[in-house]
Amino acid sequence: MTTFGLLIFPDVEELDFVGPWEVFTASSMLNGIEGRPADTVITIAEHFDPVRCAKGLRVLPDHTIDDHPDLDLLLVPGGQGTRSEQHNQRLLSWISSVSANCTWVTSVCTGALLLYAAGPGQGKRMATHWGFADTLAEHDDIEVVNDFRWVRDGNVVSSQGVSAGIDMALWLVGQIESPTQARAVQRWIQYEPAPPYQAEV
Amino acid sequence: MTTFGLLIFPDVEELDFVGPWEVFTASSMLNGIEGRPADTVITIAEHFDPVRCAKGLRVLPDHTIDDHPDLDLLLVPGGQGTRSEQHNQRLLSWISSVSANCTWVTSVCTGALLLYAAGPGQGKRMATHWGFADTLAEHDDIEVVNDFRWVRDGNVVSSQGVSAGIDMALWLVGQIESPTQARAVQRWIQYEPAPPYQAEV
Repeated sequence: MTTFGLLIFPDVEELDFVGPWEVFTASSMLNGIEGRPADTVITIAEHFDPVRCAKGLRVLPDHTIDDHPDLDLLLVPGGQGTRSEQHNQRLLSWISSVSANCTWVTSVCTGALLLYAAGPGQGKRMATHWGFADTLAEHDDIEVVNDFRWVRDGNVVSSQGVSAGIDMALWLVGQIESPTQARAVQRWIQYEPAPPYQAEV
Repeated sequence: MTTFGLLIFPDVEELDFVGPWEVFTASSMLNGIEGRPADTVITIAEHFDPVRCAKGLRVLPDHTIDDHPDLDLLLVPGGQGTRSEQHNQRLLSWISSVSANCTWVTSVCTGALLLYAAGPGQGKRMATHWGFADTLAEHDDIEVVNDFRWVRDGNVVSSQGVSAGIDMALWLVGQIESPTQARAVQRWIQYEPAPPYQAEV
């Protein structure tokens, strides 16, 4: 049984955390159906106030950074809000201290900027949204990886922008549970992508 | 400028509506950046109470079915909650009357069951989650399409399970705006999928 904590904050990008949320909770559901212990998947925010996401969706957090269960995996999403949160020392201190006890420390999109500012991302190879690769690369101790959808360096796993978190989360389920379980999740969420308009005609 | 209304209800599947939400709001954002009118993208529920989704995420609806702007597009997601909502005559009546004035009437996953029960899906070719294709096919006037990720029949567009809503939403942006715009959204949400564990080794 795994406890997944998904950080949310004002102007967090919706799909950055809901994509992995769907993957982790579907894995937990499948565990339950098959008689294995279910997992715990929770959102965590600085306060209990409704979180208004970057595109306007309003979400109620399950826990605050002051009171939550021990986490096995921390996921830090991105979004417009990272621009201010990367200067929020209270939040960065929480990310730093929680990360020290997590098996996996992960980010999606510009969540990489928060993982860097908080410490766990420093000195790592990391991925981020293509529009912020140059910003992240301004840190001399970071190697920004542009050619892969997600990157693992030690126990820090970072993905490219927005929808890349879905692929990363499936990979993490494969590491935490099994590749068979990850494939079952993929099948359940019917993740057989077929983006339209792939040719300009 | 387009008004997109995304229905939410208790036990709605999270990614069913947040995937299209991200696509539609990203399109609106890109319109704004490029000087075109932004769109309106809203969640609509039966009541203003927080909606607890199928996997536990709690969302505050923007509008209720009693008071919302005129919609150009209605999206009906799926999830465990469709089992009871397909008998909720008040909600079905709303879907029916709103659909009559929409340019596009769409569903994701088992949202197809609600579109059928409400009327707009009757007599149509439709897609749904693989686990509910047989249930939908019990209606003699439905042709369930299993081989395509989303299906258009007139102005009714239905997609397969959960993540398929992302592909369908991108296609809809291509129809409503342009294929160029849909590609820009795809690039912005970095939707270049790379599911892991595609081979069993």
